[in-house]
Amino acid sequence: MPLDDQTPTPQQFASDNYAGICPEAWAATQAANAGSMPAYGEDPWTARAADAFRDLFDKPDAQVFFAFNGTAANALALASLCQSYHSVICAASAHVETDECGAPEFFSNGSKLLVAPTENGKLTPAAVRALATGRSDIHFPKVRVVTITQPTETGQVYTLAEIRALSAACRDLGLRLHMDGARFANACASLGCAPADMTWRAGVDLLCFGGTKNGMAAGEAILFFDPVLAEDFGYRCKQAGQLASKMRFLSAPWVGMLEGGAWLRHAGHANACARRLAEAVADLPDWRAMFPVEANAVFLAADPERLEALRACGWRFYTFIGGGARFMFAWDSDPARVDALARDIGSLSRRAA
Amino acid sequence: MPLDDQTPTPQQFASDNYAGICPEAWAATQAANAGSMPAYGEDPWTARAADAFRDLFDKPDAQVFFAFNGTAANALALASLCQSYHSVICAASAHVETDECGAPEFFSNGSKLLVAPTENGKLTPAAVRALATGRSDIHFPKVRVVTITQPTETGQVYTLAEIRALSAACRDLGLRLHMDGARFANACASLGCAPADMTWRAGVDLLCFGGTKNGMAAGEAILFFDPVLAEDFGYRCKQAGQLASKMRFLSAPWVGMLEGGAWLRHAGHANACARRLAEAVADLPDWRAMFPVEANAVFLAADPERLEALRACGWRFYTFIGGGARFMFAWDSDPARVDALARDIGSLSRRAA
Amino acid sequence: MPLDDQTPTPQQFASDNYAGICPEAWAATQAANAGSMPAYGEDPWTARAADAFRDLFDKPDAQVFFAFNGTAANALALASLCQSYHSVICAASAHVETDECGAPEFFSNGSKLLVAPTENGKLTPAAVRALATGRSDIHFPKVRVVTITQPTETGQVYTLAEIRALSAACRDLGLRLHMDGARFANACASLGCAPADMTWRAGVDLLCFGGTKNGMAAGEAILFFDPVLAEDFGYRCKQAGQLASKMRFLSAPWVGMLEGGAWLRHAGHANACARRLAEAVADLPDWRAMFPVEANAVFLAADPERLEALRACGWRFYTFIGGGARFMFAWDSDPARVDALARDIGSLSRRAA
Amino acid sequence: MPLDDQTPTPQQFASDNYAGICPEAWAATQAANAGSMPAYGEDPWTARAADAFRDLFDKPDAQVFFAFNGTAANALALASLCQSYHSVICAASAHVETDECGAPEFFSNGSKLLVAPTENGKLTPAAVRALATGRSDIHFPKVRVVTITQPTETGQVYTLAEIRALSAACRDLGLRLHMDGARFANACASLGCAPADMTWRAGVDLLCFGGTKNGMAAGEAILFFDPVLAEDFGYRCKQAGQLASKMRFLSAPWVGMLEGGAWLRHAGHANACARRLAEAVADLPDWRAMFPVEANAVFLAADPERLEALRACGWRFYTFIGGGARFMFAWDSDPARVDALARDIGSLSRRAA
Repeated sequence: MPLDDQTPTPQQFASDNYAGICPEAWAATQAANAGSMPAYGEDPWTARAADAFRDLFDKPDAQVFFAFNGTAANALALASLCQSYHSVICAASAHVETDECGAPEFFSNGSKLLVAPTENGKLTPAAVRALATGRSDIHFPKVRVVTITQPTETGQVYTLAEIRALSAACRDLGLRLHMDGARFANACASLGCAPADMTWRAGVDLLCFGGTKNGMAAGEAILFFDPVLAEDFGYRCKQAGQLASKMRFLSAPWVGMLEGGAWLRHAGHANACARRLAEAVADLPDWRAMFPVEANAVFLAADPERLEALRACGWRFYTFIGGGARFMFAWDSDPARVDALARDIGSLSRRAA
Repeated sequence: MPLDDQTPTPQQFASDNYAGICPEAWAATQAANAGSMPAYGEDPWTARAADAFRDLFDKPDAQVFFAFNGTAANALALASLCQSYHSVICAASAHVETDECGAPEFFSNGSKLLVAPTENGKLTPAAVRALATGRSDIHFPKVRVVTITQPTETGQVYTLAEIRALSAACRDLGLRLHMDGARFANACASLGCAPADMTWRAGVDLLCFGGTKNGMAAGEAILFFDPVLAEDFGYRCKQAGQLASKMRFLSAPWVGMLEGGAWLRHAGHANACARRLAEAVADLPDWRAMFPVEANAVFLAADPERLEALRACGWRFYTFIGGGARFMFAWDSDPARVDALARDIGSLSRRAA
Repeated sequence: MPLDDQTPTPQQFASDNYAGICPEAWAATQAANAGSMPAYGEDPWTARAADAFRDLFDKPDAQVFFAFNGTAANALALASLCQSYHSVICAASAHVETDECGAPEFFSNGSKLLVAPTENGKLTPAAVRALATGRSDIHFPKVRVVTITQPTETGQVYTLAEIRALSAACRDLGLRLHMDGARFANACASLGCAPADMTWRAGVDLLCFGGTKNGMAAGEAILFFDPVLAEDFGYRCKQAGQLASKMRFLSAPWVGMLEGGAWLRHAGHANACARRLAEAVADLPDWRAMFPVEANAVFLAADPERLEALRACGWRFYTFIGGGARFMFAWDSDPARVDALARDIGSLSRRAA
Repeated sequence: MPLDDQTPTPQQFASDNYAGICPEAWAATQAANAGSMPAYGEDPWTARAADAFRDLFDKPDAQVFFAFNGTAANALALASLCQSYHSVICAASAHVETDECGAPEFFSNGSKLLVAPTENGKLTPAAVRALATGRSDIHFPKVRVVTITQPTETGQVYTLAEIRALSAACRDLGLRLHMDGARFANACASLGCAPADMTWRAGVDLLCFGGTKNGMAAGEAILFFDPVLAEDFGYRCKQAGQLASKMRFLSAPWVGMLEGGAWLRHAGHANACARRLAEAVADLPDWRAMFPVEANAVFLAADPERLEALRACGWRFYTFIGGGARFMFAWDSDPARVDALARDIGSLSRRAA
């Protein structure tokens, strides 16, 4: 069978991982494919990508590492802040808790995740404080890290003030603050702030910056804003199977994403598609937005029959959060296709009848 | 700086990881980049790639998994065969022992590698038997697995008879046989045998088939010839950060490599370049081939001054094995550049004087 | 300072770990201290202790191992049933979740504990089924084991019917059933049933039988009712630092406990002391039993002032479960001292006024 | 069967773990068994034992922890100094390498042991330096710790000068120095020096001080001479199943051993028994001392027939080191029985004929 006979199906919004590689990442990969280059990150593309991060974050001494995927990036980051007998505070809906198959526990050799009750997946200083001070005896893992997801799995964005309040609580409690930024670009586009303002200037110690959902084939960057925390982290990546031999193909796409601002444009587009859908269905009876639409996610609650009927129209989506339909938009989301989705949803509301 | 200003340096043979992406892998990646597709391996490319492996190995029930790199593939494979209190027999020069930063120990939570004395990195039934029966008390990790590298790190190829003899010893001792095939294609090209003959028909339980050195950007396949051994292996990959979200970009290149036979052509080319160099320098005084050239590696011993002089000519190479110069050839190795290397080496021998 | 100047304080009921070594365990230790004996369990005491367990459980092929403490016994047992990417269902109040500092996660290299909502710490088939079937995708640890604590941390005892119903659910779901029997003897004394009836005849696969709280200095037994599950478990114990070199001193006390029935007498005494207290305070206003008293624990709720006043009387107790006062009785609990506690409690109720 | 019908066999010298509990440890255990006491180390015996160590080592700020056995103590200690991607230099005959079933790798989640070639199990600064500087790339675990066994497994004792030279090399290389003192008392008795001189004053960071072989039922002490290194170590012990609930029975025996000097007397007696045997057989033909007798071990080489004949006389011994017969003496070794052994050996030499 010829390669191009593998025809794709019509665009779906079940996940922002359904999107392909954006042109900027593609072009950089193509450019990086010219000739022979040193392996394991000693190539010029890797240095250039790390510099691009340091520039973007206005932090010349940031330490930058590249991992293959977000599960690994988060798990490596948390493991570097914890010993096996420590624990990590996260929201109940955090990806590290719900969708990484125990990777944080595995990479750290047993660190426990302590789940805080939250609204919309956002931790609060009070919730952190309660969990961090609830136990202080040797029979329970000592809290060492707080991890927040920005934006959250349901598409809410922490404000700068909220992040600062959390990091103040962390400092007060002797904890480190990690940010799972699988969709970091979407949060930046949403708040319109500088990456530095949302991270190290707000007290974040360690960021996992997601490239996959942003338009790359694969790849996440791990940024240590305090270089001391990065000690021997390269060994950790290597031992955990996260050091690419032909590293240029993991790093060059970042050059393509960052240097011309594609990372932010793509995220802004995805966010706009989410708002487009949300606005189109805002006033429909029978369908209800489950969360404010602040990034690239839209969650719609409806009765099971309507959800089933929407599936019957050919739409693919998950319902693992609260039973509602999740739609995630990406760099390549086609507004016409968003509109088609909105129309189908509309046709399944009483107004249509 | 425009992307294409990142000019590559002249081709080097320090590592077969210095090569870029071959045209067949590139074309498949490009084809796979059309439109929207399900994530985490539920796309058609991943199914097609797995089928291509099953066809190639003439084993319809083989279970196929894709990992990002060889360190992870080996470590996941060994961990699936071991508990933490088990041990793995390997050659002293095995990559798992010398160049994976303790990944097998990490993924398995402590399995010990037992290093056998070998010539050219090839294990023998006698060496396996000696290590496997040396200790049988509870104070030492129980041997469970033998791992062989085909071809070895110094470029030797196990014959089919040798593999069969090892697997017979393994069966006799109750051990599993794992093959690290980071350069599996080069071994196939060297022996001219069917992949099945070198693996499951010869008693190999589990193979890591290397794609990176064969011409891909990244990616190794893990093949279980006994499906029972693959139970829950998908969870293991996920937890260890080795499940790609946009899986099609890890699997489609395999379609490009396997369906048209590029995997074998590229390996044959690399092997031929190694022989070309070896033959060109065979009769030189002052330079000596350290190992028979059976795959894509050439190791040349010379005095330190000559090695230094060769570096001064602009050649990059490692000397970590026995102090000799290692040259590794890849799918893209340019025969003219091989000849240039041979000339420079020749100019550094007494004959030149 | 002479050794016997270290005078003990008056008896407290804060924990059944506050008790010393019972006469039967002491006598066996003394007898075992005669002369020279092989180490690491090759002594006659260890064989005799294992036989005593096989007799007690009417299970000649049970495999018996000895660990130093309950945290290790539970963690080793669970790790033997799980891989790192599996998960374990337990009650929210289970010791493995709340008081073992992440030992199960550590020994298993990352297995996740899934906490079921329960009343009184007792799991139900429905709760197990809900957790075991809630997720079936590769992104969440696969459920493999259910662990129950008999009696629970709050002193409730599963009936035989309840255990059988749980094990039926486990079989149906392909799960193993582990019993944390840190106070197993108290449950036997409470139900008046044979150990076999409460365990393997009811479908329990693996039991941790507590010796420490039963009257020994230290030591728990791990009983595999299915010998196949015990494969290589001795290596696991050794690697995890749980193989005693002078094993006779860990095994002989079990001979003292089991052969003459002391294990059951002591547990019966402890249970009786709990009932004695419970009955003495049953009708007091201001104090309320938080849980039915079915084993050796009494939990009493009262307002903070009264609890503080009780402490001021010299009584030591924990309030980590629901804020109430926990009293745990042991083989050596002095009924007169129980009465003294009851009197002090009575004096702090309105009736006293 | 009455408890005291379990008659011991005649004394053997196969292992110093064959000995029972010495009177001083017994008496302290008995004294500690009076009444009710707080658990988990909050009892007065545990504080007193820790103070006894601080006094003995003349180090008021030493941090002291108690583990159940030597394998756990060593593994916990090394894990506290390492991350999973670090490595530990040890001698080829070190117990951590040969007889702990991979415990160091398990507790540390994968740290590799790097084995140095040694004579008599003693590391040298040159051997340490060679291993520590041999690899500096990210593909091999970074060296972080050196562990020495004092005395070695073959009974050699490092001089103070040798320890100081090793610690100087460690400081120079940025490494920590750990001492496995399973028979620490025997080394002290041999050198006649203060414990401080052999440890922290000589640059040792962390000591595992063996109680079991010294005359206790079980128990090792872990001493951190730099309190900073002990941070959160209590959590580590708890999570690893090494926190005794009835801690007094693990700590009180140390009071009995240390306060009156029994630890040193017993070790001196054991050493004297070793010398007694060594001297008695020194001039025999056919038997040869394999190592200088500097502690409580005697290794005798002889032809297999003679070893077999000695076994036929009823003597039990191991031959796992170099094929010779190992004899280990303990606090209870009976000089008359040592003489009987010497006579039997003598009768198996040509002189006897």
